[in-house]
Formats: sequence, C-alpha cells, structure tokens
Amino acid sequence: MRQQISVVTLGVADLDRSRRFYRDGFGWSPVFENEEIVFYQMNGFVLGLFRTAALEADMNRAGLSHPAAFALAHNVSARDDVAPLMERLAKAGGSVIRAADEPPHGGLRGYVADPDDHAWEIAWNPAWPIDEHGHVTFAVS
Amino acid sequence: MRQQISVVTLGVADLDRSRRFYRDGFGWSPVFENEEIVFYQMNGFVLGLFRTAALEADMNRAGLSHPAAFALAHNVSARDDVAPLMERLAKAGGSVIRAADEPPHGGLRGYVADPDDHAWEIAWNPAWPIDEHGHVTFAVS
Repeated sequence: MRQQISVVTLGVADLDRSRRFYRDGFGWSPVFENEEIVFYQMNGFVLGLFRTAALEADMNRAGLSHPAAFALAHNVSARDDVAPLMERLAKAGGSVIRAADEPPHGGLRGYVADPDDHAWEIAWNPAWPIDEHGHVTFAVS
Repeated sequence: MRQQISVVTLGVADLDRSRRFYRDGFGWSPVFENEEIVFYQMNGFVLGLFRTAALEADMNRAGLSHPAAFALAHNVSARDDVAPLMERLAKAGGSVIRAADEPPHGGLRGYVADPDDHAWEIAWNPAWPIDEHGHVTFAVS
C-alpha cells in the first residue's frame, strides 16, 4: 500500500471561527468551502475543517474528545520566524501551549492550539529539506 | 505563510504494537525508528508515531484523550480496494468504526481505528487526482 495520506480532517465546533483562525493566523486560503466543511490544498494532500457533529456522523462515532493525542507541525524556513508566527496564531484565536524553545534534536519549536484545541507545532528544523512545492523529506538531524 | 504541514504526529501507547499495525495493515516501512518515535516518509510530509507520554512532554500538556475529533484519510485507487484494506487493518489490530458505504459526495469509504483509536478513513474517491508520487489535488466531485 502506498505510504499516502489524502486528507487530514480536523473536527471544529464553529466553522467561521476556524476559517478566521487559519486565515488570520496562518494566512491560508480555502480551495473549497460550504456550510459543513472547508478544504485547503496543502503540500501533496488536503486539510479539511469539518463541523465536529458532521465528522461524528460521517465516522459513525459520537463524543469525540480533546485535547487529543496528535499534533500537526508547520515548519518555517528561519529560526526567527517561529516566535512571530506563534504570536500571530495566538492573536488570531489560538492558545500557546508551549513557548518556543530548543528540542533535543536541534532547531526551535513551540506549540499553539487552534480554537478547537488541535495542537500545532511551529518548528524550524534546518535538517529537513522542504522543496519549492512545500514537500518535506525526512532526514536525520 | 505557505499552506504546509511537515509532520502529522500520532501519540501511541505501545510503539511496537503500532509499528506492527502500520506494517501488517498498510504495509508501510519506517524511514527512521528509535525507542520513542517511528517516522514514515509520506506524500510530501512525514507521519510520526510518538509515545504518547513523550508527545505530552514535548507538547507540555498532559491527559491527551481519545477518541479525538480528527481523522486521516488514505485513498485507494479502486472501489474494490476499500473493503480488503479495511479487513487487513482489522486483522492487524485495528477496529472497524464504520463499514464501507457511499458518502453523499460519491465514491466509497469506511473508517478503521488504529490500536490507539486514531481514526483512518479508507476511501475511494475517483474525483481527486493522485499523481505518481501520491500527491493529492483537491477537486470538486
């Protein structure tokens, strides 16, 4: 089976609030939106914001909870870009979970939760190549 | 800010159990592994399985819970590939949350939870192009 993920879907309580967070915080533009879902074209896959009730219905599973045992990482291209982006995300409705500091493997990273408590790691990791399309290749630091 | 995610990290209770699930269920091979984390090179980003306790320490946040309000989708290339993959995932230690059926937008999809209750949508969606590198482009069905 191909090592492939097509969509990362986040359940959100308020689609407008989330759309604003991703626009004002990250500066991202949807490729599609309706009253239940917003899609963003990412680097090789699609990010979806889906009303949690609709995600629960689609999944056939109620009572989805948070904070959850997962994180998404967004990498920036310079060490000095980490803190300003984290500030921008906090101003846009996010909450800083961990201020930026150096992880054991090097670089710099912090964590911000989006309005639904989904954790975003904002990282500068000079060891991992990112090409002009935003595609990331694993490399040992 | 680039519309970019570098890493999708899943917190897992037992790294060996998860590694077996992703190997025997999806047939995936790690690009890196140690006692705390396993990385898979995906289509333009990296999937990480991280011991939940280590993820909590990294995130500076305790009590991560499940089932969580998010899902990852793996798309297959033919309608008839959905059910066999779901069976294989269930045999490898996953749990079927929703048997495959047709969503309102067409195609076919079902949901399987991994051993840590992370939800995977297994989908056939003929509307979304997937190139030879596994990179997915959003398209309206």
